[in-house]
Amino acid sequence: MTTSPRSPLAPEGPCEAPAVPGVRAAAIALGLRYQGRPDVALLEVPEGSAAAGLFTRSSTPGHPILWCRRILARGRARAVIVNAGNANVFNGPAGDAAVAREAEAVAAALGCPPEEVFVASTGVIGLALDAEPIARAVPTLTAGLAEDGLTAAAEAIVTTDTFPKAASAICAIDGVAVRLTGIAKGSGMIAPDMATMLAFIATDADLPAPVLQTLLARTAATSFHSITVDGDGSTSDTVLLLASRRAPHDAVGDPDDPRLAGFAEALATVCRELALLVVRDGEGAQKLVEIRVTGAVDDGSARRAGLVVANSPLVKTAIAGADANWGRVVMALGHCGEPLAVDGLEIRFGETLISAGGGVVDGYDESVVARHLAGREVVLEVALGVGSGAATVWTCDLTHGYIDINAAYRS
Amino acid sequence: MTTSPRSPLAPEGPCEAPAVPGVRAAAIALGLRYQGRPDVALLEVPEGSAAAGLFTRSSTPGHPILWCRRILARGRARAVIVNAGNANVFNGPAGDAAVAREAEAVAAALGCPPEEVFVASTGVIGLALDAEPIARAVPTLTAGLAEDGLTAAAEAIVTTDTFPKAASAICAIDGVAVRLTGIAKGSGMIAPDMATMLAFIATDADLPAPVLQTLLARTAATSFHSITVDGDGSTSDTVLLLASRRAPHDAVGDPDDPRLAGFAEALATVCRELALLVVRDGEGAQKLVEIRVTGAVDDGSARRAGLVVANSPLVKTAIAGADANWGRVVMALGHCGEPLAVDGLEIRFGETLISAGGGVVDGYDESVVARHLAGREVVLEVALGVGSGAATVWTCDLTHGYIDINAAYRS
Repeated sequence: MTTSPRSPLAPEGPCEAPAVPGVRAAAIALGLRYQGRPDVALLEVPEGSAAAGLFTRSSTPGHPILWCRRILARGRARAVIVNAGNANVFNGPAGDAAVAREAEAVAAALGCPPEEVFVASTGVIGLALDAEPIARAVPTLTAGLAEDGLTAAAEAIVTTDTFPKAASAICAIDGVAVRLTGIAKGSGMIAPDMATMLAFIATDADLPAPVLQTLLARTAATSFHSITVDGDGSTSDTVLLLASRRAPHDAVGDPDDPRLAGFAEALATVCRELALLVVRDGEGAQKLVEIRVTGAVDDGSARRAGLVVANSPLVKTAIAGADANWGRVVMALGHCGEPLAVDGLEIRFGETLISAGGGVVDGYDESVVARHLAGREVVLEVALGVGSGAATVWTCDLTHGYIDINAAYRS
Repeated sequence: MTTSPRSPLAPEGPCEAPAVPGVRAAAIALGLRYQGRPDVALLEVPEGSAAAGLFTRSSTPGHPILWCRRILARGRARAVIVNAGNANVFNGPAGDAAVAREAEAVAAALGCPPEEVFVASTGVIGLALDAEPIARAVPTLTAGLAEDGLTAAAEAIVTTDTFPKAASAICAIDGVAVRLTGIAKGSGMIAPDMATMLAFIATDADLPAPVLQTLLARTAATSFHSITVDGDGSTSDTVLLLASRRAPHDAVGDPDDPRLAGFAEALATVCRELALLVVRDGEGAQKLVEIRVTGAVDDGSARRAGLVVANSPLVKTAIAGADANWGRVVMALGHCGEPLAVDGLEIRFGETLISAGGGVVDGYDESVVARHLAGREVVLEVALGVGSGAATVWTCDLTHGYIDINAAYRS
C-alpha cells in the first residue's frame, strides 16, 4: 500500500468542517487496515433528526447499503458510523451481521433503536470485516463526541484520498440562518451513476425527511451524478443528509416552497463542492477537467455525452500530455450514442473555438490551446447543435499516478 | 511520436499473410505522417469480385466510412486503398473530396468504376488529408501489385501497432480448397461496438455478396465485437471481406447451406485471430485477459457483462499489478446493469474458484491465483447464476505504457 503525495489540485489550507448546531462527531484510530491514523468516525444528531439518502445502484451493493436503504424508509437518524479500509461487500451473512453489530453497539450507547443508526464502510471488497473492535470502541467514540468533531471525522473516512474533504454554507430559511456542512471521501471507483463516494451532510434546518429527500435527489444530478474519475461504479456509494432540526424557523413542508430556495441553492453548492473535491483528488489527477455540453436534445443527453467524453481514456491521456488532440473529443462524441449534428458541432478548448461546420476552424491557433492545456484547470466546451439541452460534468486526467495507485492497492 | 517496443504478447516469428488466388497487393512509403516505413497499401481483386463489410457505428464517422457504406450496397469490389497516419475524419467537404480523389485515381489505373474502390484511413482525427501524393503514387502501387504482397500491405497499415497482423486459414467448399487471409491493424481506440480497427480479409471463395455479408456479420459478435482495449470507439472501424471468386466450386447461394459450414468456421477463426492480435497489441499491454461469462440470461447479456469487466480500469490495473483483487470484478459486475444472482455468483481466476454463495470460498488460496496472474495470459471466469447465456471477451491490462503512448500520440 503506497501513500500518494497530496494532489496538486487540492485546495490550499487545512480542511475545515464548521460545526452545525446539534451535530457532534468523533474519530478514532483502530488500525483496521490503515495504521497511525484515525479510521473510524461516528456522527451523532439529536433525537427527532430527519434523514435523506442516496445509494449506489450497483447490483452487488455492500452490506451497509442494504441496511441503510432499509432504515432510511423511517426517515429518522441518530447516528452514522463509518469505517475506512474495508468496504464490507460480498461477505455473505457475516457481512450483514457485522453491520447489525455496529448499529446495535451505537444504538446501545446512544439509547436509540438500531434502526436509527446508519452504517457506511469503504475500502477493500470481499474481505471479512471484524465488527468487534468497532463495537468495542463505541464508548470511547461517544465519549469523544464534540460539535467541532466533523473535521476529525472527515480525516477518518478517507482511503486513497490524499486530502480530507469538507464543504460548508450558510443560508436562511424564512429569515433564520441555517448551516450546512458536508464531509466526503472519494478518489477512485468514481462513476456518475450515483456519487461513487461517501458523503455526509449535516444541517440544523428544521425540515422533514420527505423534503430533504426531494431536495437531495434534485441536486445530485448536477453534483454527485456529474463527476467521474474512472467510470467504475462503486458498491458502496452513500450520500446522507441529516437534519438536526434545531434552527428556529417556521415549519416548511413543501420542497417547492419559495422559502426553501436559499436552502436548495446552499445544498447544491455544498454537494457540488464535495463532488469537485473528489475529482480534484482523483487517483493520479494532475488536472481538473470541466466539460460543458450545450445544444443537446435535452439536459440528460448533454450529461450523458459529457460523461462519455469525461470517461474516454484517450481524451484523458491527451489532456495529461497537454496534447490539443481535439479529434479524440470528436471520437468520444461519435461513440456516445447521443444525437448530434456533425456540421453543427462546435468544440472549444478554453476560450478557443477549434472546430465548427464539420471541420477545423480556419486560422485555428493551437499554441493558445496548448497554453490552456498546460494549466491545472482545463475547460472543454462542446455544442452538439441539435437542441437546447445543457450540462456540465467534471473529471480529471489519466496519468501514471492512477496506474501506480491501482496496480498495487491491496499490496 | 514515440515508437514502442514490440508487445510481449506478440506472436513469435514474422508476420505472414499467405497469398489468395486472384488477390494482389502492394505498399509504398509516402511519409504522410510516418517516416522510413510504408504507409499506403493497395489491395486488388479481379473484376466480378464480391464484397461484404462492417463499419463503425460512430455518429462522427470518417469520410472513408461514408464512401464505403455507400458503395458497399453494390456488393462489388476491385480494390481497397488504405493509408496510415491520418484518419481523414471531420475534415468537412475537403475530406469527402480526398476520398473521391483516391478512389478515382485507383479506378483510372485499374479501369473500373470508382464505386468499386474502397478507401480506408487510420491515424489522427481532424487533420486535413492531402490525397494528391496518394493519387500520384497509384501507378507505382499498381505496377507493384503482387500475389505475395499482402504481408507488405499488413506492414503499411499499422499506426501505434508494435507488430503487423495477419491470420489465414484453408477450408473446403463442396470439396474444393478455399483460402482465407486477413490482415489487420489496431492497438488503441479499441471498443467492442464494431471492431474498432481496420481488417481486410480476402478469399478466393466463389460466393455472392449477400452470403459473404451474412457470414461476416454473424462472426463479428464473437470476434471483433468481443474485444476491447480502452473502450473508446473509433470513427474509422472497417472490416472488409473480399472474394475473388476464383475457387472452382459449385455456386452456393444460401449462407445456411451445409456446404458452407467449413468456410464459416474458417472465417470465424480468421476473424477471432485478427481480433486477438489486436488485443495482444493493445497499447501498453503486458497481459492478455480472457473473460468467460456463463449463467447469464442470454448470450448478449453475458457479452455486455464481460465487456464491462474488460473495460474496468480498476480490474485492468489490478491485473497489471498481478493483484488478486477479485472484489473489483464484483464491483464491475454490480455496475454492469445485467441480471445476476449475488448468492449464485461464482468467480474464478485461472482454475481457482474464489467466490461463491455471496462471499469468498472457505480455504481460498490466494497464492495460486497470484501465480496465475503473474503470467502473460490471464483467464477470469464469471458465472452469473441466472440463466444459460455465455460469452467470451478479450482485453489487456492497463499499464504505464498506455499512458506513455497516448499522452504524446501526436507530438
